[in-house]
Amino acid sequence: MLVTVNQHADPEQVQAELQGLGLWAQRLDSHNGPTTLLIAPYSATVSIETLRAVAGVQDVHAARSARPRLDERVRQAASIGTTVIGPGAPPVLMAGPCSVESEEQIQSAALMVRAAGGTLLRGGAYKPRTSPYPFDGHGEVALDWLRAAADAHGLGVVTEAMSEQHVDQVARVADLIQVGSRNMQNFALLRVVGATGKPVLLKRGRAATIDEWLLAGEHLLAAGAPDVIFCERGIASFDASTRNLLDLSAVAVLKHQHELLVLVDPSHATGRADLVLPLSKAALAAGADGLLIETHPDRRLAQSDGPQALQPDALQALGEACFL
Amino acid sequence: MLVTVNQHADPEQVQAELQGLGLWAQRLDSHNGPTTLLIAPYSATVSIETLRAVAGVQDVHAARSARPRLDERVRQAASIGTTVIGPGAPPVLMAGPCSVESEEQIQSAALMVRAAGGTLLRGGAYKPRTSPYPFDGHGEVALDWLRAAADAHGLGVVTEAMSEQHVDQVARVADLIQVGSRNMQNFALLRVVGATGKPVLLKRGRAATIDEWLLAGEHLLAAGAPDVIFCERGIASFDASTRNLLDLSAVAVLKHQHELLVLVDPSHATGRADLVLPLSKAALAAGADGLLIETHPDRRLAQSDGPQALQPDALQALGEACFL
Amino acid sequence: MLVTVNQHADPEQVQAELQGLGLWAQRLDSHNGPTTLLIAPYSATVSIETLRAVAGVQDVHAARSARPRLDERVRQAASIGTTVIGPGAPPVLMAGPCSVESEEQIQSAALMVRAAGGTLLRGGAYKPRTSPYPFDGHGEVALDWLRAAADAHGLGVVTEAMSEQHVDQVARVADLIQVGSRNMQNFALLRVVGATGKPVLLKRGRAATIDEWLLAGEHLLAAGAPDVIFCERGIASFDASTRNLLDLSAVAVLKHQHELLVLVDPSHATGRADLVLPLSKAALAAGADGLLIETHPDRRLAQSDGPQALQPDALQALGEACFL
Amino acid sequence: MLVTVNQHADPEQVQAELQGLGLWAQRLDSHNGPTTLLIAPYSATVSIETLRAVAGVQDVHAARSARPRLDERVRQAASIGTTVIGPGAPPVLMAGPCSVESEEQIQSAALMVRAAGGTLLRGGAYKPRTSPYPFDGHGEVALDWLRAAADAHGLGVVTEAMSEQHVDQVARVADLIQVGSRNMQNFALLRVVGATGKPVLLKRGRAATIDEWLLAGEHLLAAGAPDVIFCERGIASFDASTRNLLDLSAVAVLKHQHELLVLVDPSHATGRADLVLPLSKAALAAGADGLLIETHPDRRLAQSDGPQALQPDALQALGEACFL
Repeated sequence: MLVTVNQHADPEQVQAELQGLGLWAQRLDSHNGPTTLLIAPYSATVSIETLRAVAGVQDVHAARSARPRLDERVRQAASIGTTVIGPGAPPVLMAGPCSVESEEQIQSAALMVRAAGGTLLRGGAYKPRTSPYPFDGHGEVALDWLRAAADAHGLGVVTEAMSEQHVDQVARVADLIQVGSRNMQNFALLRVVGATGKPVLLKRGRAATIDEWLLAGEHLLAAGAPDVIFCERGIASFDASTRNLLDLSAVAVLKHQHELLVLVDPSHATGRADLVLPLSKAALAAGADGLLIETHPDRRLAQSDGPQALQPDALQALGEACFL
Repeated sequence: MLVTVNQHADPEQVQAELQGLGLWAQRLDSHNGPTTLLIAPYSATVSIETLRAVAGVQDVHAARSARPRLDERVRQAASIGTTVIGPGAPPVLMAGPCSVESEEQIQSAALMVRAAGGTLLRGGAYKPRTSPYPFDGHGEVALDWLRAAADAHGLGVVTEAMSEQHVDQVARVADLIQVGSRNMQNFALLRVVGATGKPVLLKRGRAATIDEWLLAGEHLLAAGAPDVIFCERGIASFDASTRNLLDLSAVAVLKHQHELLVLVDPSHATGRADLVLPLSKAALAAGADGLLIETHPDRRLAQSDGPQALQPDALQALGEACFL
Repeated sequence: MLVTVNQHADPEQVQAELQGLGLWAQRLDSHNGPTTLLIAPYSATVSIETLRAVAGVQDVHAARSARPRLDERVRQAASIGTTVIGPGAPPVLMAGPCSVESEEQIQSAALMVRAAGGTLLRGGAYKPRTSPYPFDGHGEVALDWLRAAADAHGLGVVTEAMSEQHVDQVARVADLIQVGSRNMQNFALLRVVGATGKPVLLKRGRAATIDEWLLAGEHLLAAGAPDVIFCERGIASFDASTRNLLDLSAVAVLKHQHELLVLVDPSHATGRADLVLPLSKAALAAGADGLLIETHPDRRLAQSDGPQALQPDALQALGEACFL
Repeated sequence: MLVTVNQHADPEQVQAELQGLGLWAQRLDSHNGPTTLLIAPYSATVSIETLRAVAGVQDVHAARSARPRLDERVRQAASIGTTVIGPGAPPVLMAGPCSVESEEQIQSAALMVRAAGGTLLRGGAYKPRTSPYPFDGHGEVALDWLRAAADAHGLGVVTEAMSEQHVDQVARVADLIQVGSRNMQNFALLRVVGATGKPVLLKRGRAATIDEWLLAGEHLLAAGAPDVIFCERGIASFDASTRNLLDLSAVAVLKHQHELLVLVDPSHATGRADLVLPLSKAALAAGADGLLIETHPDRRLAQSDGPQALQPDALQALGEACFL
């Protein structure tokens, strides 16, 4: 976005006024045209109308929105089964194990989740694994176990679709289809998932800019998804103290600038069960509409991502601190 | 850190027990020695004693602490003038303008800060500037204005020392000496600042790992500083939506793993006045002992970092939301 | 990897010997066991046998290889149609437009590529696009145009498969199937592509560690791919001077440590046609087995990635500098 | 930089022409003004005159240069003692140990460096250390040993100034004063170093953008330095395979876009003696004016950064490959 300065105005004065609005502006001059003030992306949100009204501003230039469908979702809540998420609704807890490992495990997990104030049960039937050799999910049967456990405890279901070929299966049981971080820009998958007509939980890629993330959401809406819920789960970083780097400023940007639906997954973001509680509180304080938490009845037995899962006591404590 | 597995124990079983403790362990084998389980840094915090007690663990190997002086500061509060910061004390608000621009400006700022619940007044007399040409602070006279304004409103003073040659001047007026982000590993400066015997606010470098940041604090303590308060202010990132990338997981690591004193500066972290409030709340929820907030009586007039400063109303709202 | 120190040896002496081998080692002590020296990943490559022979070393502990199939490909060349790539062969030039836009365009491109010393023609029939709305490839018909142009000029074909549903089509015409950066960890796609039995060009994800990249290659081999050629194309960074950040140290690591096949795509890495030539030379000097270059007969007309494409003169100059 | 489009021209046509010049342009519209095309920083270098001549371009807007003194150094060689560096001169080798550890060590090093084709001897008398406790240099006496060794072998001297208080000492013996990566934005130090009137080797900060790096060079020139030689030594990254991430695209940008003097330090960039040779060749191919190489007569004995130092044979091989 940029403004041009009226020929009779003092560019420095206009720049000061923009600064007063919270805008970082860089001055660009030309031989014969008006002075231009280019506004940095890390500026406060200000409407075109407000800019136009600044004394000395001749004109405001802006790019046409690249996200017309998301623009229509601004400040809208979404319904996931019986759960409402977003403006006007209390924050939402979605929790469950990384993988659906057995009927018993997912039933126990559902009980924990419900007790902690959760309304959606998560669990993977198809698991992306960095290496080709470890356990990668029980597939279709696990979807049935997951649905049954959720139904038995009055929960909705969120689960990941990894392959275009499994989207139908997943859509059959899910109230909310998850697209994982590694598939955020798997556009073929986005197209098929969007076409199911189910709402989608779109995890952020490890190096995705906020713009790229939003445009992946636009892909889903363009393909037919009724709602997209963005989920921050940590980005790439140079520090090894946490598994990924939780980016709560992105959450604030999505919530307070773009006014879209956004969840936080502190489990994958940190990899550390001992930091999930404080960072869950921080996520909600930053504006998140809810949390996605990894939990396991007994994490010693977990076949994937065990160390970061909350055990029953810790999940209950988190539920009491944030949801009950 | 690593554990060796007892010859008669099953390494997989030991690995499962470690997973139960929230530890990510990688198995390393040898021809004739015991199996070793190497624990990833992004694991939950577990004491050596706890590890030693795990069934099947033969021995625990750990590096000697590289930070003996910081280790003695664990779980200790610090006194900055009459302000107590840390365990047992309520969160602290330090606020003020980027630069001390005039006697009037800093007096107005002090009034705002006091009204919002602040106890320390910040303001720069010497300013690091990316370019050599813009305004870089009024120097010694600004230190006097700052001290006078703080005294007039019952506040302490925090201000930055940028040059070894100015440390004495700064120490004369400051209750807390700030070392800026760009100087976090300016070891010559750390030595001189530490030698003043004043407590130090140590901002994190834009690409500093948590370990490097802690060791810079150890430098200060080794040089004579009585206390170090770490301050997260955003790191380098690939996204331009915010000026830097606020890292609240580092705050959680400092607070909940290392149990040291940590502040957050959401103003520099985001560059966005419109995101300071939600990220301030998030910082305190993540465990920060207080906030460092940029504020200006009229940011149109600010000579540096104006767009990110909170104006009086916004600072008051932040004070009421978090401190009053 | 780690070594344990013989009880009668001096750990500092052993550490010095490891340093002599180019290894960064951290000392970990225990109450009753031997001292352990943990070797940092950014150390020179040294074999287990060499370590074992160091005076004072009791034992060497290492993880079992997570990449058994890649291990068998070490120091092996691959054949892509009539082109040999890798040890013993001269560097390879693959070039062509981002998208196959018309029969004429791809025929002109093939002529340019052949003249510049290229042996494979690249061009996209299916294009991943950050936004859902712009041109995303002509699909199947473009594959036919591409094959015909390559055949007419004695070139092989490399083109991208983006969807599991199109892999068969792509495999029908391609000598080398490209998996794009955004799909590096699209494991469902890797499985289908690997199962075609064609060699694969695997681009690095924007935030993929070298280990993750190699494991994605292992996925392909496990699924049936006969050969994997890794392709560095730039990673995420905090600097906007280039479109991505070209990582030639990764190329050196793949070539000189892992001894696998690696190409460089300086066009996507930089986004800058004016830097393609010097960075092409640098890539080959770092050890790359070849280059993937974006080129267009008239980049004013390009429907995607035009600004980074080399025009005929520049491609010819690059060919003469590096391949002819 | 941006262009405005003539009222009677078609913005898409102008955008295509810019694309033909290698420019990425984003279209910004307004209600009543001309269409603006904003040029991305990762575009090819094109002069204002060229842009002005594009059909349909009404006007070109650009920021005034923030680096007037660097602009005068464009395409200029520099003399460091008897060594000429830059346009028209062959690449330069500066080498030596991390620390000057003894008279004998630095004499041996000087012999090695001379034999390998080096013209400047490097060695630290004052060493920045992440921790306060290890060896940090022998100080002033080491400066004398360094000068004597250089003189004995007909070499110039490059050595680091870390403290404002030691700059005079350092300037007394150095032909080229090094400012280290951690002090790139230690503006107080830059001022004192610049004021000595000696040429300066300015290492890049681990998270410094190219613009920040150039502006730090401008600080030096503004303070009186006659010449600044930039030195890339690796930036922060998410991959642990190398100690830092060597950024050769920054070298290409400095050389081919800004046309300034630039060296590469592959030793610190990688931490790996086994990768120094291929990445040295790559650095020169990318356009570097020379190399800064860490070397040690016997790296087992090195008191700092030993693992990355080249031993005599390897330095000689590098000299023969690149300089002799």
